Amino acid sequence: MKSETVVVHADMEPLPGIANPGPHQLYRNPRLAVEERQLGDLDPDEIRVQMLYAGICGTDVHLVETNPENGYIRCSAPAVIPNEGRVIGHEGVGKVLATGSHVRHVRPGSYVTFESIIVCHYCDVCRRGQFNQCRQALLLGLEKDGLFGTVVDVPSMLAHDVTPMATTDGNLRAAACIEPAGVAYVACQNTQVGGGDTVVIFGAGPIGVFCAMLSKIVFGASSVHVVEPVSYRRQLARQWCDRTYDVQEFFDNMPASIDVMIEASGQLGNVAGIFRRLNANGRVALLARSGMPLVLDAVDHMITNAITLIGSRGHLCGAFAKILRLHENGRIPLGEVITEVLEGPEELAAILRSPQRILTGNCKVLVRLC
Amino acid sequence: MKSETVVVHADMEPLPGIANPGPHQLYRNPRLAVEERQLGDLDPDEIRVQMLYAGICGTDVHLVETNPENGYIRCSAPAVIPNEGRVIGHEGVGKVLATGSHVRHVRPGSYVTFESIIVCHYCDVCRRGQFNQCRQALLLGLEKDGLFGTVVDVPSMLAHDVTPMATTDGNLRAAACIEPAGVAYVACQNTQVGGGDTVVIFGAGPIGVFCAMLSKIVFGASSVHVVEPVSYRRQLARQWCDRTYDVQEFFDNMPASIDVMIEASGQLGNVAGIFRRLNANGRVALLARSGMPLVLDAVDHMITNAITLIGSRGHLCGAFAKILRLHENGRIPLGEVITEVLEGPEELAAILRSPQRILTGNCKVLVRLC
Amino acid sequence: MKSETVVVHADMEPLPGIANPGPHQLYRNPRLAVEERQLGDLDPDEIRVQMLYAGICGTDVHLVETNPENGYIRCSAPAVIPNEGRVIGHEGVGKVLATGSHVRHVRPGSYVTFESIIVCHYCDVCRRGQFNQCRQALLLGLEKDGLFGTVVDVPSMLAHDVTPMATTDGNLRAAACIEPAGVAYVACQNTQVGGGDTVVIFGAGPIGVFCAMLSKIVFGASSVHVVEPVSYRRQLARQWCDRTYDVQEFFDNMPASIDVMIEASGQLGNVAGIFRRLNANGRVALLARSGMPLVLDAVDHMITNAITLIGSRGHLCGAFAKILRLHENGRIPLGEVITEVLEGPEELAAILRSPQRILTGNCKVLVRLC
Amino acid sequence: MKSETVVVHADMEPLPGIANPGPHQLYRNPRLAVEERQLGDLDPDEIRVQMLYAGICGTDVHLVETNPENGYIRCSAPAVIPNEGRVIGHEGVGKVLATGSHVRHVRPGSYVTFESIIVCHYCDVCRRGQFNQCRQALLLGLEKDGLFGTVVDVPSMLAHDVTPMATTDGNLRAAACIEPAGVAYVACQNTQVGGGDTVVIFGAGPIGVFCAMLSKIVFGASSVHVVEPVSYRRQLARQWCDRTYDVQEFFDNMPASIDVMIEASGQLGNVAGIFRRLNANGRVALLARSGMPLVLDAVDHMITNAITLIGSRGHLCGAFAKILRLHENGRIPLGEVITEVLEGPEELAAILRSPQRILTGNCKVLVRLC
Repeated sequence: MKSETVVVHADMEPLPGIANPGPHQLYRNPRLAVEERQLGDLDPDEIRVQMLYAGICGTDVHLVETNPENGYIRCSAPAVIPNEGRVIGHEGVGKVLATGSHVRHVRPGSYVTFESIIVCHYCDVCRRGQFNQCRQALLLGLEKDGLFGTVVDVPSMLAHDVTPMATTDGNLRAAACIEPAGVAYVACQNTQVGGGDTVVIFGAGPIGVFCAMLSKIVFGASSVHVVEPVSYRRQLARQWCDRTYDVQEFFDNMPASIDVMIEASGQLGNVAGIFRRLNANGRVALLARSGMPLVLDAVDHMITNAITLIGSRGHLCGAFAKILRLHENGRIPLGEVITEVLEGPEELAAILRSPQRILTGNCKVLVRLC
Repeated sequence: MKSETVVVHADMEPLPGIANPGPHQLYRNPRLAVEERQLGDLDPDEIRVQMLYAGICGTDVHLVETNPENGYIRCSAPAVIPNEGRVIGHEGVGKVLATGSHVRHVRPGSYVTFESIIVCHYCDVCRRGQFNQCRQALLLGLEKDGLFGTVVDVPSMLAHDVTPMATTDGNLRAAACIEPAGVAYVACQNTQVGGGDTVVIFGAGPIGVFCAMLSKIVFGASSVHVVEPVSYRRQLARQWCDRTYDVQEFFDNMPASIDVMIEASGQLGNVAGIFRRLNANGRVALLARSGMPLVLDAVDHMITNAITLIGSRGHLCGAFAKILRLHENGRIPLGEVITEVLEGPEELAAILRSPQRILTGNCKVLVRLC
Repeated sequence: MKSETVVVHADMEPLPGIANPGPHQLYRNPRLAVEERQLGDLDPDEIRVQMLYAGICGTDVHLVETNPENGYIRCSAPAVIPNEGRVIGHEGVGKVLATGSHVRHVRPGSYVTFESIIVCHYCDVCRRGQFNQCRQALLLGLEKDGLFGTVVDVPSMLAHDVTPMATTDGNLRAAACIEPAGVAYVACQNTQVGGGDTVVIFGAGPIGVFCAMLSKIVFGASSVHVVEPVSYRRQLARQWCDRTYDVQEFFDNMPASIDVMIEASGQLGNVAGIFRRLNANGRVALLARSGMPLVLDAVDHMITNAITLIGSRGHLCGAFAKILRLHENGRIPLGEVITEVLEGPEELAAILRSPQRILTGNCKVLVRLC
Repeated sequence: MKSETVVVHADMEPLPGIANPGPHQLYRNPRLAVEERQLGDLDPDEIRVQMLYAGICGTDVHLVETNPENGYIRCSAPAVIPNEGRVIGHEGVGKVLATGSHVRHVRPGSYVTFESIIVCHYCDVCRRGQFNQCRQALLLGLEKDGLFGTVVDVPSMLAHDVTPMATTDGNLRAAACIEPAGVAYVACQNTQVGGGDTVVIFGAGPIGVFCAMLSKIVFGASSVHVVEPVSYRRQLARQWCDRTYDVQEFFDNMPASIDVMIEASGQLGNVAGIFRRLNANGRVALLARSGMPLVLDAVDHMITNAITLIGSRGHLCGAFAKILRLHENGRIPLGEVITEVLEGPEELAAILRSPQRILTGNCKVLVRLC
């Protein structure tokens, strides 16, 4: 069976003198191609899926973006680009064409959406149920071929059956957004957003917007503030929060007392900027990787007030099922973060090559693949 | 200073042969009177309050209702009716006229609403912050004179300043409802209602309705079901839940899988009735005292599925502040459970003497006291 | 490859008129046999293990015991006895002879001990990390052939590598006890045993003794009480707790205030017996299946004091790794609950046919299988 | 009534240009004196106590120590030194001579030990039970006259009745150590030390040693490591942990995987030093104030592994009662951290003036005051 895929190629030239180099220290000269691939026999633990919609994540952009200072790719999240290239993409929804011989929980004809972290189930971390920190985790579309193809083979453990949702095109698009919504869900859980909390979110990309939506509708925050430099995204975020701000505007007008801060912008300086406004027993989640250090000068304030900082990654541990049930019951309008739908692999590859349109004039961009 | 108060009197005649009799085994022949009382010197730890609105709770009704079988009062919650009678009432809002010499956190002119559990702050339970279970707890309007008076003296620890809310009459009425909303909040916390849960609530009195409202708006339940025999209350509950049922109708149509059950009706048989539908890691809260035993035959289902039952009482531990912030930000329409506002002590006493109108044609009934 | 196994056979004759009959309503006339079995090809997800030691659990006894009232087996835990019989046993330690092609986390030559609940990893309960309540759970030695054989094939997910422990015979025997210790660990977690708690444990079988040991050494209880009718077991439990009691002796002398009760005896009446002594925020775990109902008459005490009852089963969710680390560091002497070691399948079968010696003159009984 | 007290005096000269100066920016030229004070009428909410033993804390030393760089005192914890001087000291045990008219929970003749944080009970933080972060907290011996006197008046809320412990002199000394043990208890709770954890503690002063003792005996850690530059303290800590290290020795030999780090040394660089060794879901508590910034360069490791940093202060929220019960039952030998007992106020003042003996040749130093 043939599949039209979006593939990234790069030259592997490890920067010298780095013990455990990340992708941004390994790969240079990234090239994006639309390639036809021939799918082989289906693995017993995988499913073959005709993709309907896939979503573009910032990580996809960082994989094909070049750091002008040194010519390496920007992406610092774990990624392996083999000689034959890597099919990227880790958000989406599709229809199952075939299932491997071990697969029980979905069947041909099912509509499915996907987690994007392949876990081992056997390490001590998985066994205690903290899958997001699995010691052998492999990331879909980064360490294993991903979803940007017309037909893809995917480990069955990633699939969630969304057939009951597949009644409308809108619902299918919404299903393609569960993965980033799950990341936001885990961030809200990690910071224990609760009834009456004042929540500040930095960054109104899809994950930041979902953090606002979930804080307000599902986690009971009484006051949600979003800080975002891009005017288009601020505008979109407005309906899911109480107030939006440009960065400077926020620091001039920030709430007197903040219970929860979610840092989804990659600007770690924001943490120090609001730290003394954090309430007793306040909580801060760091989501966005930047490779930069965190500097906190108000450590005494942290001690006096028993403030918590926590790193947050992943969307596992039940978030998908919760989001699905909330969506099915009309509680959360997942699809409203989608601001554009592209048509086919070629258009997808084109926008990834010049992503400015994604970053300043959009929030979540999907591509239709069938 | 004079105050017009609603006072219950009764004859203390302990039923013989009971080791630790409750009020329903101690007091008979309850009489309700409107009496003028002269207030003395203000205690250093109390505040003097001109009451604006007070709310009627089922406990108030049970205090003046006679059990036809034996002539004793119905109320089994802790209560002491002294010779001079007990001023009842424990929900309300008022304006501070004067403060005792030790009082710092409210001042004359402040508008205040009240917790109704006077805690000791010194027992081991208070010190670990679990005030609802204070070993020396005294209940306002039951073990200490309460709020059904035009002017009342109240321990200052009970008062929460709601002056910022006192801008409209509607807000003041809403403030009178924070106590029962707090009981509902604690029940939702105790059952850990969370994102995507299916919640079933038995009983659509004010606490049941608030459980529905909070489950849906603040705690993220995806599906909320209310079971209530009184048609008026079912009707009212409808807007805060996904479906309402008469009792039989529920057992004929109940959800296949239930994450949380909140028993606020006093019919403990309901627990056994739904027990086998409780999902893995399901939780049940018991709120309503009935003096009846609980019988569970599906203990194996409880073990296999790690189901939790928890007793739930009180509204302390931060619930008031959370509800206030949620109300201030327009998240929860507390006042919408109010279905009637009486005028003055005489009308209050009259309805308590024939409470059928409260129980079948109303949800929360307030009385205006100034 | 050949294996000498201990197999139970029974006649399947469902009791009429029962919707979902348990094994105790399905199987009669149990017969135990020692049989030689020929092992076939190894499944890709299984490992082949030469058993060193296996442990006898009460469930094994209940599988081969006849209820004199109706001739059915006693066991009510999920079990399927096929025509060819069921190899029983679910506690043990062995050496890996071969691994299926998918197996990565253990290798031939490794010493392994086993969880006994085969989970699906795909249901919503597994995905949220609550494996003990997996919707498709299969129990080893009950619903799938178990460990009472000289060589057995076992799903690899059950295996924990204990090679670093395999330095002494005593350590290997201890490793065979991690499964019941894990059940005790989960019970202590479910009841949140913590610093300074007074804990009462009913039943001093292996799980009850481990509950005492872990409460005292690992969970910080300040006072641990064990209630057990069998004098031999009381004697053994003594070193792991502060006081032991016969049942009547306990009810005559029980502590004034109890924080945690762990019911591991199957006598549910014990719960009602101590209920009014449960402290504010007390917790009760029910572990032992009895098929009997639970009757609680002190529901008001439960509400006033926010007491929690929880069903507890299983040993997953990280308990094995924690116990292993505690044992490796010399914190918990797992092996001291072992009171007898039998030699070989024939002696094992013999004692299961007349188990009185296990129940009154022993705690944990092992059998050496190589 | 007269009392011989140890009082600190200082000149208040705020450093210019600092918005909210701390004591180390306010007070210079500290002088310590032994003064006789006349006690006035007893406040209704206080108790008068004949002190038996008091303990010296590092904060006491910092109050009278001069920063050679600028001549100001070292202490940065909240402190107010009035014109008449401040009676210092906040750890100790004594016998109640008289109780104010509001006091109910202790009586004359009772032996008492003391919490050292005076909380308001009325702020939103107290009401949710998080007393350690009370918004109006006053520190005993820093913001209110303390325990270094032969007879002292103390807010009754601070007192815990230890009369049942007062049977031996050793127990009384142990009771004087509950306050620092409580700080350690809260740190272990905040980092959720649990069964099988590997714990690293920086600093083997009394709080660090108690963290080790509690981690090992009460919280179930399987491996406890203590890092301390002073050889005397390392030696003392040895019995409560698995291994001790000098600082350099530790960084050359640290465990491969660390679940919990407790920073009680004031050297924040230690956090960055071990950060990449923190296990998935690892936790770090910061206890020691240093006024220095925290710099974390491994933020990606923090995100991938969901690592938590938390500020930890205080000893409230039930820690005292838990420690008392553990001590009463012989679980934790509190008194073994005491390495010297001084005689009387003059000797106390002398050692505070030249504290080197405390810091390098001792752990907890007490003074006998009667």
